Amino acid sequence: MPDVCNIALIGQKFMGRVHCNAYWQAPKFFNLAVKPVAHTVVGKDLISLAPFADRWGFRKYNLNWKDVVKDPEVHLVDISSPSYMHAEQALAAIAAGKHVACERPLSSNLKDARSMRNAAARSSRSKTFVWFNYRRTPAIAFARQLVKEGRLGRIYHLRAQFLQSWGGPSAPLTWRFQKKYAGYGAHGDLNSHMIDLARFVTGQEFTEITGALAETVVVERVLAEQPKAVTARSAANKAKGKSDVDDATMFLARMSGGTFATFEASRIAAGHHNNNMLELNGEHGAVRFSFEDMGYLWYYDNREDRRTAGWRRIQCTSAGNHPYAGAWWPDGHPIGYEHTFVNLLADMMAFLGGQDPTVPLSDFHDAYESQRVLEAVLLAAKHRAAVKMAEIK
Amino acid sequence: MPDVCNIALIGQKFMGRVHCNAYWQAPKFFNLAVKPVAHTVVGKDLISLAPFADRWGFRKYNLNWKDVVKDPEVHLVDISSPSYMHAEQALAAIAAGKHVACERPLSSNLKDARSMRNAAARSSRSKTFVWFNYRRTPAIAFARQLVKEGRLGRIYHLRAQFLQSWGGPSAPLTWRFQKKYAGYGAHGDLNSHMIDLARFVTGQEFTEITGALAETVVVERVLAEQPKAVTARSAANKAKGKSDVDDATMFLARMSGGTFATFEASRIAAGHHNNNMLELNGEHGAVRFSFEDMGYLWYYDNREDRRTAGWRRIQCTSAGNHPYAGAWWPDGHPIGYEHTFVNLLADMMAFLGGQDPTVPLSDFHDAYESQRVLEAVLLAAKHRAAVKMAEIK
Amino acid sequence: MPDVCNIALIGQKFMGRVHCNAYWQAPKFFNLAVKPVAHTVVGKDLISLAPFADRWGFRKYNLNWKDVVKDPEVHLVDISSPSYMHAEQALAAIAAGKHVACERPLSSNLKDARSMRNAAARSSRSKTFVWFNYRRTPAIAFARQLVKEGRLGRIYHLRAQFLQSWGGPSAPLTWRFQKKYAGYGAHGDLNSHMIDLARFVTGQEFTEITGALAETVVVERVLAEQPKAVTARSAANKAKGKSDVDDATMFLARMSGGTFATFEASRIAAGHHNNNMLELNGEHGAVRFSFEDMGYLWYYDNREDRRTAGWRRIQCTSAGNHPYAGAWWPDGHPIGYEHTFVNLLADMMAFLGGQDPTVPLSDFHDAYESQRVLEAVLLAAKHRAAVKMAEIK
Amino acid sequence: MPDVCNIALIGQKFMGRVHCNAYWQAPKFFNLAVKPVAHTVVGKDLISLAPFADRWGFRKYNLNWKDVVKDPEVHLVDISSPSYMHAEQALAAIAAGKHVACERPLSSNLKDARSMRNAAARSSRSKTFVWFNYRRTPAIAFARQLVKEGRLGRIYHLRAQFLQSWGGPSAPLTWRFQKKYAGYGAHGDLNSHMIDLARFVTGQEFTEITGALAETVVVERVLAEQPKAVTARSAANKAKGKSDVDDATMFLARMSGGTFATFEASRIAAGHHNNNMLELNGEHGAVRFSFEDMGYLWYYDNREDRRTAGWRRIQCTSAGNHPYAGAWWPDGHPIGYEHTFVNLLADMMAFLGGQDPTVPLSDFHDAYESQRVLEAVLLAAKHRAAVKMAEIK
Repeated sequence: MPDVCNIALIGQKFMGRVHCNAYWQAPKFFNLAVKPVAHTVVGKDLISLAPFADRWGFRKYNLNWKDVVKDPEVHLVDISSPSYMHAEQALAAIAAGKHVACERPLSSNLKDARSMRNAAARSSRSKTFVWFNYRRTPAIAFARQLVKEGRLGRIYHLRAQFLQSWGGPSAPLTWRFQKKYAGYGAHGDLNSHMIDLARFVTGQEFTEITGALAETVVVERVLAEQPKAVTARSAANKAKGKSDVDDATMFLARMSGGTFATFEASRIAAGHHNNNMLELNGEHGAVRFSFEDMGYLWYYDNREDRRTAGWRRIQCTSAGNHPYAGAWWPDGHPIGYEHTFVNLLADMMAFLGGQDPTVPLSDFHDAYESQRVLEAVLLAAKHRAAVKMAEIK
Repeated sequence: MPDVCNIALIGQKFMGRVHCNAYWQAPKFFNLAVKPVAHTVVGKDLISLAPFADRWGFRKYNLNWKDVVKDPEVHLVDISSPSYMHAEQALAAIAAGKHVACERPLSSNLKDARSMRNAAARSSRSKTFVWFNYRRTPAIAFARQLVKEGRLGRIYHLRAQFLQSWGGPSAPLTWRFQKKYAGYGAHGDLNSHMIDLARFVTGQEFTEITGALAETVVVERVLAEQPKAVTARSAANKAKGKSDVDDATMFLARMSGGTFATFEASRIAAGHHNNNMLELNGEHGAVRFSFEDMGYLWYYDNREDRRTAGWRRIQCTSAGNHPYAGAWWPDGHPIGYEHTFVNLLADMMAFLGGQDPTVPLSDFHDAYESQRVLEAVLLAAKHRAAVKMAEIK
Repeated sequence: MPDVCNIALIGQKFMGRVHCNAYWQAPKFFNLAVKPVAHTVVGKDLISLAPFADRWGFRKYNLNWKDVVKDPEVHLVDISSPSYMHAEQALAAIAAGKHVACERPLSSNLKDARSMRNAAARSSRSKTFVWFNYRRTPAIAFARQLVKEGRLGRIYHLRAQFLQSWGGPSAPLTWRFQKKYAGYGAHGDLNSHMIDLARFVTGQEFTEITGALAETVVVERVLAEQPKAVTARSAANKAKGKSDVDDATMFLARMSGGTFATFEASRIAAGHHNNNMLELNGEHGAVRFSFEDMGYLWYYDNREDRRTAGWRRIQCTSAGNHPYAGAWWPDGHPIGYEHTFVNLLADMMAFLGGQDPTVPLSDFHDAYESQRVLEAVLLAAKHRAAVKMAEIK
Repeated sequence: MPDVCNIALIGQKFMGRVHCNAYWQAPKFFNLAVKPVAHTVVGKDLISLAPFADRWGFRKYNLNWKDVVKDPEVHLVDISSPSYMHAEQALAAIAAGKHVACERPLSSNLKDARSMRNAAARSSRSKTFVWFNYRRTPAIAFARQLVKEGRLGRIYHLRAQFLQSWGGPSAPLTWRFQKKYAGYGAHGDLNSHMIDLARFVTGQEFTEITGALAETVVVERVLAEQPKAVTARSAANKAKGKSDVDDATMFLARMSGGTFATFEASRIAAGHHNNNMLELNGEHGAVRFSFEDMGYLWYYDNREDRRTAGWRRIQCTSAGNHPYAGAWWPDGHPIGYEHTFVNLLADMMAFLGGQDPTVPLSDFHDAYESQRVLEAVLLAAKHRAAVKMAEIK
């Protein structure tokens, strides 16, 4: 393993930009055994690709990902394309002996995800990573530590919500609303994170999806890209198409350590811009997190004297006390969304350099387990044995 | 109808005490057409009953409820006994032509609840009421008004939680943990409130219980009343019994207006003493409530300019603007738990005097609808068609 | 001392109503050695007085307070009239050998307050009380206990704010805006509470007013009672008068235990309906309170491991653990504004019965000390320079 | 002006590191007319300087700032050294025709600050900037916009607090506790920010310091660098020295638009790690900010119907709606502490390129006005009397 890691990034949109920032910030804030290098970026059109490459300091850019994954200079392929492309790209990269860091959910369907897991398992050269960035919010990583130390005892309840509101009736039909591209709607986009966090924080596996409700509320949407002939039309006459993914998915589950879990993901939850929330209530204590206050973990010690017992708002910025805090600023100086990715990239590089990551990384095998849960939920929603109220007299 | 309402209270524990306070406070803070009078109290032992009657100004006290419900002086029988006694007492009171105010859930089982509903329907003289006090938290009544005005548009999501933590492994086996007395555990005690609030605030009915999970976590508990012979035994040797009600019940549901609802009730949720929470997310806006901050309704106007849009923390204490606020103190001076009962009693008296209550009252017919939902949930939990994770390869 | 305490209430407005509620609730929730009785109420006009007396169960009502304070049946005179009347009424009551409970501030000026203190000191029969109700918010009383136990160590900072917003330019010129009636504006109304709380919670006395700023922002106001001839005039032509009390008063102070204190009182602080806030930061910890969340005390333990240290939100409703909680409802069931008065009345009755109050009571001597601080602040504001408390006799 | 701006950074500690990050991030997230380049870094010892230069990509490093400020390749000198060195370094840089970006407070004393202001005024070539980073927290910049639009009307109250807790008795005697190096304690470190924010958000100037209290609570501290001979000594025997700067400073002030302002800065406020808070209450509305929730501005619209009026929690992350939001991530994805510096550097570069900054920048003239206030406060504290700003030249 060289002491640099040349990265080929596929995708230059939101996730691409977040990853690029991580390539640059990680070596400045962490002491890395392996240094990430922005080597090649792959996009769909040169008009935007060239300035993107220039801005982020890539050495090369290319429209053809198939060539890039074989480039001998490249050590790691970073897949930030839409979910339906993950499998083909990852398989090619693994075949070429590259390490792979893939965005989540692992794929747009379970079959592809399985092939990715299997390819990773068979490869002796490729290390795989999945960008479950929220694990590395310091408060979440800290919650995992508290759970591991037994501070909560047996965990009775887990409550996970990831609520957004950008997907109302006026949102156009982008790829994110189409099953063939995205695989899933809010469920894949948002529950995939929460399923991962539930497994990560508790160390438990899902054993049963007890009930589920997945729904496409807004079926007809204006096309994101209007056919040329109609661009001049009024809004009312705009060309429309069908959305076939869920706008919201809720489910109940049991986990291997006896925890009862409730999940809710939505893109139509007015009032929430990007709020993932996690709460665990155990025999000895409880923890609570909301990404709207990402710098804090709330902790309730149930064994404390009731007189002074209360939810504690712990600002997770103390070096030496809270995960990743030492890499950044002095106590009380918050970090933001992007740092969850920087922390993750730093841990990937640590791992490639033979060091232990601060908290466990997700690889294709691990991410496949989460995708199994995604699928089980949809199956439960489809084959549900709901009780109709009309049956109860 | 006389201009006073002589009340016979059955039960002198927690609920009895709350109701008594309402008899005294309501006429001092509201201009009532009918004045409640603490007339007779019924209890189980004279040792505690006599001082209770004295403290709360009852004219009489009695150990035999069957005599009391026939007392010609009594106008209304207030049933605050354990759930399994509701039906017999209510039927007797209705047979005697009395009005009845009954604690919730309506009964410990659906059959008894049905007989109560039917008796009420057949009676031409008796008016019935159910003590769903949380409806009359000003913030909740205000939420209902906003929904009715269309401020939320179509409601996509309803999220209801009622979390407590007093029922951990060390809590003894009182009647509340036994099906024959209580009928249900956390589900009947807590979800009954939330099911009522969901129906009350949205004006929708439940159409389907999509999935449910009900669980007795702590099966074996120390008996609340130890047999005499063992009182000297050490804690480890104390006589134990089985709990056969749920410690926690979660469910997913669909409602008649297209709302997806999630519910969670627990007595083992560390960190929560008595927190009921309700959130609705609609097309045009959202509202949020927590009993831990009972004086406030949070409101998000989704049609507002995003620049200044944000969750508004509305202190519901403004006379003329917020329900019940005018009866109490000037703006900014909070009321507490007991006032939800006072507000309810005031509305009962208004109704008996031919006036409109501030917000709708629940009667036996209405409460029976909520009990049907309670039962449907348990049926869904029992006959569930869960997906085992082992089925997903 | 008889085992009942017949109370003569002077004043039937906001405070009168709050006190009446306390007479009724206290004996129902506390085991009182002396039982308060609503005996006589004194008001200004019979039209409102008779129904008020009826509603609250007074045995008598009267327009002439001078007769009432001499009534041999009366044991305690409760003065809820405007501040400028306190001294004359209190002196007459003490002269007649009655106990006195007086609203705060003690008087509208220091000279009168001094005469009240002196009369109380000279009397061997009269016990005096001042209605500093906020002391008996459970969270505040609990804060005092934590301070006394040394949990905060040396207290470096005290921060007190009492912010309201009803006194903007459109508020009419009631007696509260006139010095001859009220003595002070926001300062007397609001800072009087916070000065009392600062002394109560810390156990320290003020030693110096280091700087002060008191201001009448809205000088001209529409008369609250328009002359008959002008009632038909348009708003613009309404008769006006001058306000000569402060709308807002801020000051800095030093206290005897080395604490630096900042105070701010305002009736023109938009966004705040009735919010008093207190925070103390000490060597070993800190506490924080806001009346907008009156059920909670926030506590920070500075000696705790930084890893899990955080502000704890303690719900002060646990019987046996938090002051007054045992008198009310089970854990997690909040009380409201009025209960601070009920708690206070219960402690007054306990004291008259020879028992210890839960936390110390304020009498005329104690309230005079707070009034000295009020005066020192205005002096500092006037001279724009520090004032030593020793200068104020 | 070239299209690159070569920066010479003096200082490699906390502030140096924050600035370096800004050099790298700004051109990646903003479209800059002038691109910052990490050119030379100046430090005190080569052992740490060389790796620092390497990590942050500086072309050169140097122990002698006097040489560096004359380097013809350098366009801008970034002064992040202790306050007492600012004047000498800034004057030399200006004399050499360089632009200067200086950390705040402008200097350790008013005389030096005045010479800096004068040198900047006389120079035709040098542009000056001061690192008042908190101005560029999006919520703060947004608050300024709301004030400018008249949303608050006349501002009655301004409340500013900057509370930290690292300066307790156990903190060693670093340069920050010595007047000759730092000039001021908490006052210069923390109030300098709040004075700047008060002027920035309101657009008003200070007219009077009405009262002030500045105090050194912990006079004797263990030396940060122990003499060699004593390093082996026990803690109790460690060499000590005197702190001669304030641990906490509070003051009251009047501003030119009629606002009454209260300020409090402390390094010994347990419970607060790095919390600056600002609240303004005006005739038509109010805004509130806390750096502990830096992503949000709370806004109260006082002209709204009281029924739905409430503090709104506005998440300031909406591109096009909130300052700087468009440069970063999609709505709901928070930024952190460091981004306030990146936003500021981007505006500096915009200004050097002839563009308008998003919100006004502070230069030496502007920062001198803030330093006059700093000095007036200490004068008021010393004389225990009000000081008119006109007295401070």
